[in-house]
Amino acid sequence: MSVLFAQGFLAAGHASGIKESGGLDLALVAVAADAPAVAAATFTQNLAAAAPVQVSKEHFERSSHKVAAVVLSSGNANAATGAKGLADAKLMCNLVADGLGVLPESILVCSTGLIGIPMPTDKVQSGVAQLVKMLGSSPSDGLQAARAIMTTDTKEKLTAIQGSNFRLGGMAKGAAMLAPNMATMLAVLTTDAAVSDEDMNVCLRKAVESSFNRLVIDGCTSTNDTVICLTSSKAGKVDLDEFQSVLTKACQSLAMQMALDAEGATKCVTVNVVGAASDTQADIAARKVAGSQLVQCSFYGADPYWGRLASELGSSGAEFDLNRLQVTYGSTVVAKQGITVAHDERELKQYMSERDLEVTCDLGLGNGSAFIITTDLTPGYIAENMRTS
Amino acid sequence: MSVLFAQGFLAAGHASGIKESGGLDLALVAVAADAPAVAAATFTQNLAAAAPVQVSKEHFERSSHKVAAVVLSSGNANAATGAKGLADAKLMCNLVADGLGVLPESILVCSTGLIGIPMPTDKVQSGVAQLVKMLGSSPSDGLQAARAIMTTDTKEKLTAIQGSNFRLGGMAKGAAMLAPNMATMLAVLTTDAAVSDEDMNVCLRKAVESSFNRLVIDGCTSTNDTVICLTSSKAGKVDLDEFQSVLTKACQSLAMQMALDAEGATKCVTVNVVGAASDTQADIAARKVAGSQLVQCSFYGADPYWGRLASELGSSGAEFDLNRLQVTYGSTVVAKQGITVAHDERELKQYMSERDLEVTCDLGLGNGSAFIITTDLTPGYIAENMRTS
Repeated sequence: MSVLFAQGFLAAGHASGIKESGGLDLALVAVAADAPAVAAATFTQNLAAAAPVQVSKEHFERSSHKVAAVVLSSGNANAATGAKGLADAKLMCNLVADGLGVLPESILVCSTGLIGIPMPTDKVQSGVAQLVKMLGSSPSDGLQAARAIMTTDTKEKLTAIQGSNFRLGGMAKGAAMLAPNMATMLAVLTTDAAVSDEDMNVCLRKAVESSFNRLVIDGCTSTNDTVICLTSSKAGKVDLDEFQSVLTKACQSLAMQMALDAEGATKCVTVNVVGAASDTQADIAARKVAGSQLVQCSFYGADPYWGRLASELGSSGAEFDLNRLQVTYGSTVVAKQGITVAHDERELKQYMSERDLEVTCDLGLGNGSAFIITTDLTPGYIAENMRTS
Repeated sequence: MSVLFAQGFLAAGHASGIKESGGLDLALVAVAADAPAVAAATFTQNLAAAAPVQVSKEHFERSSHKVAAVVLSSGNANAATGAKGLADAKLMCNLVADGLGVLPESILVCSTGLIGIPMPTDKVQSGVAQLVKMLGSSPSDGLQAARAIMTTDTKEKLTAIQGSNFRLGGMAKGAAMLAPNMATMLAVLTTDAAVSDEDMNVCLRKAVESSFNRLVIDGCTSTNDTVICLTSSKAGKVDLDEFQSVLTKACQSLAMQMALDAEGATKCVTVNVVGAASDTQADIAARKVAGSQLVQCSFYGADPYWGRLASELGSSGAEFDLNRLQVTYGSTVVAKQGITVAHDERELKQYMSERDLEVTCDLGLGNGSAFIITTDLTPGYIAENMRTS
């Protein structure tokens, strides 16, 4: 399962004391070979990118996209931590490189947790040294690694897909600050498909665009987002279309697990916008609707208040004509040509009480379409986010 | 007080039954003269603009900016109501015009409440007819009118300012859907200063820009926003700079009353961004920070978690260099050059427990500055917005 599903990888998880709770907080995913692996990676676009993101970007370029291992920590984001933060992130890479006998630039590093707090360097130092020794020591290594990257996640997020002649698996974390252009999320995917780094890069970007980048929970883009895909190439050549399809499915599975585990959420809602002037316009409109606090509150209340959708569509910046709008909750059409139409209110009420909802706004303007996955806004989200400790 | 503070106006408030609660739901503000008044108005930029907004815009142009009265209703937004909605809005104008013996195009109409629900035409018809008869019949008319436009507002919002030789007063409503480009808010201002409609227009736009358009509560822009300023001209010529200053102060007072009465809010927070590359960049950054659910949650928790501010600044789209950032809560500097600095945590904790907070982010890039007023995000907001009934 997880990052060990494909051939040729080792993993480990360890509790180093970064988390005051004493929970697992360090993870390692390494290629079980002498040479580093072909890899692709995407990083947050936040200009306040954390130290591990800066270091990983630099290493990824310097190593010409060849990666021997990824070390990840949770409980502290190592973001807004200045020169010491950069030194801490590099230290993590150096310790892993020493342990594995590879160059530091072949190591990527990810962190997730609170921003603006210096890393406890001593704990990180002894923890990472220990972590490297643990690689491959337990049959539950893959699960331990996935658990070691959790923060407010209530469960680990895993995927494993069998292709016709290759395997692809992965792990992820993320439960809030989920927004366009990558969310507060880390994901490591591993495969044994022999794919070039150029192809891997193209495939990963496409997969991320139609999975993680479709999630809008709270409109916040994190300082630490990172998605990395490594291949051991052990399964030999594969059909690239099939590889793309499997990688996209894996990312979509992880993204959906994030939505279902979003902080305080009780519903997972797919917002479809169709009939837009273009796909880009549909995307703009769907993001505005899905990201609206008022709309998210109405999902929490199981209230099919389509007027709020209309209002958000009208202020999204996308082309819009209220007189052409049709709104459907599930399979119940509630508005046509911009006004409420008679519908089975009992059936609709029943539908709104379900956990997974789908809302479709047909703008009646063209053939553009897009979807965004979001959740409801609940008191649980506020309780989770009102204090850092 | 209120819309009757300046010379030359009449007002009334009435409970017509639009609100099932039986509360006041119709208001009228009229010029006490045979000729209509010089006026200025600004309307929502939402493309799903409600019927009353569409009708008011048309009347305002056709009457060459001369207005005899403004009729306002609460409890139903008359938005997303199609042809019937337009007919209802026109009916309200026609009834007032008949009662006052003026042309329908000299009447403006505003509504606020739920979207997508047809107006109860019978109740509106008899109610507006009654409302016109009540004009000027009670010493509490101004207060009654202000109360009749309330929805989830817990108190009426009034202002009255004495200029050196003129008066200006007003009323407003608004407690959510407060965002850039006018909020779900209605405001009617009245003055006796003799100002041309061109000057009034320029002054009103400036005043709105530095008051209502500085509020960001939930990032939602309403279908019904309207601000109208009328003058009876009875006080004669005034100094235009003084008029601008008084009008801006009145709008800022009403805006601050809205923030303090925002749905479920327990805190009112001014977010300052200074040292930006330009004022526009500062505005973009301040709006992103103030509108962030995560930041608003931390205000609710009285948590000075500056890392969230840094993360929002980094993803705002404005030019940003974390290494130059300085963050101050009240007068306590918590971060310099992008990292946490030692500070008096007790004093800061005490400050964060106050109702009115101020946060300043100095980007260290230039001389651009902007401020946005927001609130905390609380379970009360969700409770208010999770269901329409």
